[in-house]
Amino acid sequence: MFPSTPSAWALHPQLARDTVNLGDLPLCRVLVIQDANYPWLLLVPRRNEVAEILDLDEVEQAQLMTETTRVARALREITKCDKLNIAALGNVVPQLHVHVIARRTTDAAWPRPVWGAVPPVDHDPEELKLFISAIRKKIWLG
Amino acid sequence: MFPSTPSAWALHPQLARDTVNLGDLPLCRVLVIQDANYPWLLLVPRRNEVAEILDLDEVEQAQLMTETTRVARALREITKCDKLNIAALGNVVPQLHVHVIARRTTDAAWPRPVWGAVPPVDHDPEELKLFISAIRKKIWLG
Repeated sequence: MFPSTPSAWALHPQLARDTVNLGDLPLCRVLVIQDANYPWLLLVPRRNEVAEILDLDEVEQAQLMTETTRVARALREITKCDKLNIAALGNVVPQLHVHVIARRTTDAAWPRPVWGAVPPVDHDPEELKLFISAIRKKIWLG
Repeated sequence: MFPSTPSAWALHPQLARDTVNLGDLPLCRVLVIQDANYPWLLLVPRRNEVAEILDLDEVEQAQLMTETTRVARALREITKCDKLNIAALGNVVPQLHVHVIARRTTDAAWPRPVWGAVPPVDHDPEELKLFISAIRKKIWLG
């Protein structure tokens, strides 16, 4: 009598393990990667079975751009970084996720891309808390 | 009496050296990177002084998404790749450029990102010609 309930969206376990949850924008969950080498955020569209930006419909693609630039602007303003790196790779974790990374010319991997460049470094818990609070304020209230 | 003519847009010399020109979409020049390890395209918005997606206005950002997905769809259809990698990094060449790369689980860098992974390989001229012709047809007439 009713269409079957679509299966609930869930964050890929590997992304869940490597990140802290900041909250949800209309399309994406926003996460921070647990690596103090770089201020490094992820946007994950809350859609099932989506591996590529092409798998989103056109409205969702436009929304992804809007949310990505919103998060990137907040990250740039807070970190005063030298460069942003924005990327959808997904060679290891198949659930579509967009990296938004604040790069500095003095960071551990510069000018190389960050993936696999150096081992991750633990955050100082207090610094991470302040960073998350600043990002949340800019993204949701900015 | 007249506003000064804005300076003409020009492709960054390093991008010009490393690529072959496929043609222009409304916002971006489309290029193919001269590295036969991967089918690898670039989109370069024809705007001066733009280093970040954030430096484009909102209409241009939306257009960049439209053109990126158009190029990515053409690339996926032609190469039957396993994964697309889409990225705006710009740590080395400051002119905004978006990489659209067709990845295979058998390629030289998989699953690592392609940048700096292995030395570039020359294209077979005939294969490159066929690839460019197929991509042009899909992007402009598809």
